Parts: sequence; structure tokens; C-alpha cells
Amino acid sequence: METLEAILTRRSVRRYTDQDVPEELIQKILAAAMSAPSAGNEQPWHFIVVHKKELLEAASGISPYMPMVKDAPVAILVCGDPSVEKFPGFWVEDCSAAIQNMLLAAHALGLGAVWTGIYPKQEYVDGFKALFKLPERIMPLGLVPLGYPAHPYPRKDRFNAERIHYNDW
Amino acid sequence: METLEAILTRRSVRRYTDQDVPEELIQKILAAAMSAPSAGNEQPWHFIVVHKKELLEAASGISPYMPMVKDAPVAILVCGDPSVEKFPGFWVEDCSAAIQNMLLAAHALGLGAVWTGIYPKQEYVDGFKALFKLPERIMPLGLVPLGYPAHPYPRKDRFNAERIHYNDW
Repeated sequence: METLEAILTRRSVRRYTDQDVPEELIQKILAAAMSAPSAGNEQPWHFIVVHKKELLEAASGISPYMPMVKDAPVAILVCGDPSVEKFPGFWVEDCSAAIQNMLLAAHALGLGAVWTGIYPKQEYVDGFKALFKLPERIMPLGLVPLGYPAHPYPRKDRFNAERIHYNDW
Repeated sequence: METLEAILTRRSVRRYTDQDVPEELIQKILAAAMSAPSAGNEQPWHFIVVHKKELLEAASGISPYMPMVKDAPVAILVCGDPSVEKFPGFWVEDCSAAIQNMLLAAHALGLGAVWTGIYPKQEYVDGFKALFKLPERIMPLGLVPLGYPAHPYPRKDRFNAERIHYNDW
């Protein structure tokens, strides 16, 4: 799929078929994630690929915005490691860039995905740290369930000329 | 350009030719930015397209990591508006997804770009707020200079299998 088309037609896909996601595609999505830029090239990310049904079900219960996680064949938990930072606080942006790469790669590969938010909501951060046995320093940023879309998701145009300014506000 | 190829070959481009970036390409990059997902679909972003040489020069002086900004034909300042948030604090992730879309779109269009960080470094935030006359509520997240690459930027492979975990840490 052409890059601009992928960017413009990507949707948040919350319903999946029962079909498994081949490991080869998961590896491509992880390679896309790690191709993101990061402050000082720190690459402060970790990825937990979650296949176990009981973990997906438990994760689904941590936030009310994650009901689709229990029905996904796989989900990837994206975490940051602020301890490697030379530029404090930028891990959130670095890991967000990695997630956006993952969403676009998934879409280009015929999969559907959605970014479900964890950080900075403390309650969700604590829930994910406990469930996935994260070391104290590791911060869960977002969870990305993945699967084949259960139905078509037509493009939504979000272009808004009012958000564009020239030279200053 | 194919999506996976664009994701894997995108580089941080810091040297540009003198050639101007056509307005049509800037509009495509902005459309890509606004196609990003956001928490609760809040779309909490604003974009300031900066062509004025004196503004690019002044911006370049705010952070020591922005020397290339003064030599770019154009730069886009990406800002967040936390006042529209239903989910506090997620504007950073939303605007980061928008920036990543911009970097990929620029690369696919034959341009080069680099994400230069502003937020959460308070000194840079204050400098950009003052220079671009941002309303008090508006937060500058990052500045993206754009231009035609002055030389080739070959692919760098950042894949690191040690960052991948299965089911839990």
C-alpha cells in the first residue's frame, strides 16, 4: 500500500475476525516500531507481544476503553524505559512514534489495530505494571490489539483548515 | 513509496538544498498529520507553517539541537491544546502520532524532515510560546524543519530482538 494512502485511510479497528496474526507479520510490525525516531537516538522502547488468552482478558479489564482487547488474537504492549534517557521526558514521544509506525504497518499489511491509552493515567499504569510484571523503571504507554478487521472501515477525513496557521498564531 | 519501505527507510534529515517546498506538498503533509488517531478523537493539534526567514533563525536559537532549522526552507511547529481534552495528558501522544505521520509523508514525497523536540523541556516551551505568540493554553510539542535532502540518507536498521518480550516481562 502506498504510504500516503495508508496514512489517510488508517482507522482505529476495534473488531477482529478469529483468524490468527502470522508471526511473520508481527515481526514486520515490530521492525516498523523500532524504525521510529527517538530523542538522541535513545530507542527507549520495549514491546511485549501478548498471545495468552487469560492475559488479554485481564488486560481488557484494566481500562473501560479496552473491551476489544479480550477478543483480539494478539496485542502488543508498548513500554518506555526512562532510565536510558539523556533527554528526560521524551520517552513518551519516542514510544508514541513507534506506536504510530505499528498502526500504519498493520494497516498496510491488511490488519487492523487500535491504540488504547495507558500512560499517563496512573490507575492504568499500575494495572499494567502488575499484570505484566514490569520492572519498576519500565512504564507502559499503550496497548495495541491486532487482528484481521471484522468489517470494512471506510476512510474518515479529519482535515481541518482552522488548525493551520502561518508564521505565527 | 510503499508504506513498509517508507517506515523502514525514513531518516532524520538535517541538511537541505535551497529548493522551496511546494505548498501542495505542505498541504499533503498537514493532511497526513491530521489523519493521526487521538484519545477520544479529540484531535488536540494545531500546526504553524513557518516560512519567514527571521522566525526560522530565531527558532533555531532556542535549542542547541535546532541548528538546521535556520537553513530549512520551511518548518512546521506542532502544538497541542490540552484545553480540549476529555482524557488529560494524552495530547502529547496524539501530537506525536501526528508528527510521525508528517515525517513519513515527507519521506514518501521525496522530502527530508527531522523531529526536533520542545516539550517537556520548559526552557524550549517558553521560548517557542513567546516567539510564535501562542495563547497561554497552547503547548508547543516539536518543530519539524522540511526540505529536499542535500545528500542521500541510506537506511539504518534499528531492529533489536532484545526489546521484544512474550506474554510478560
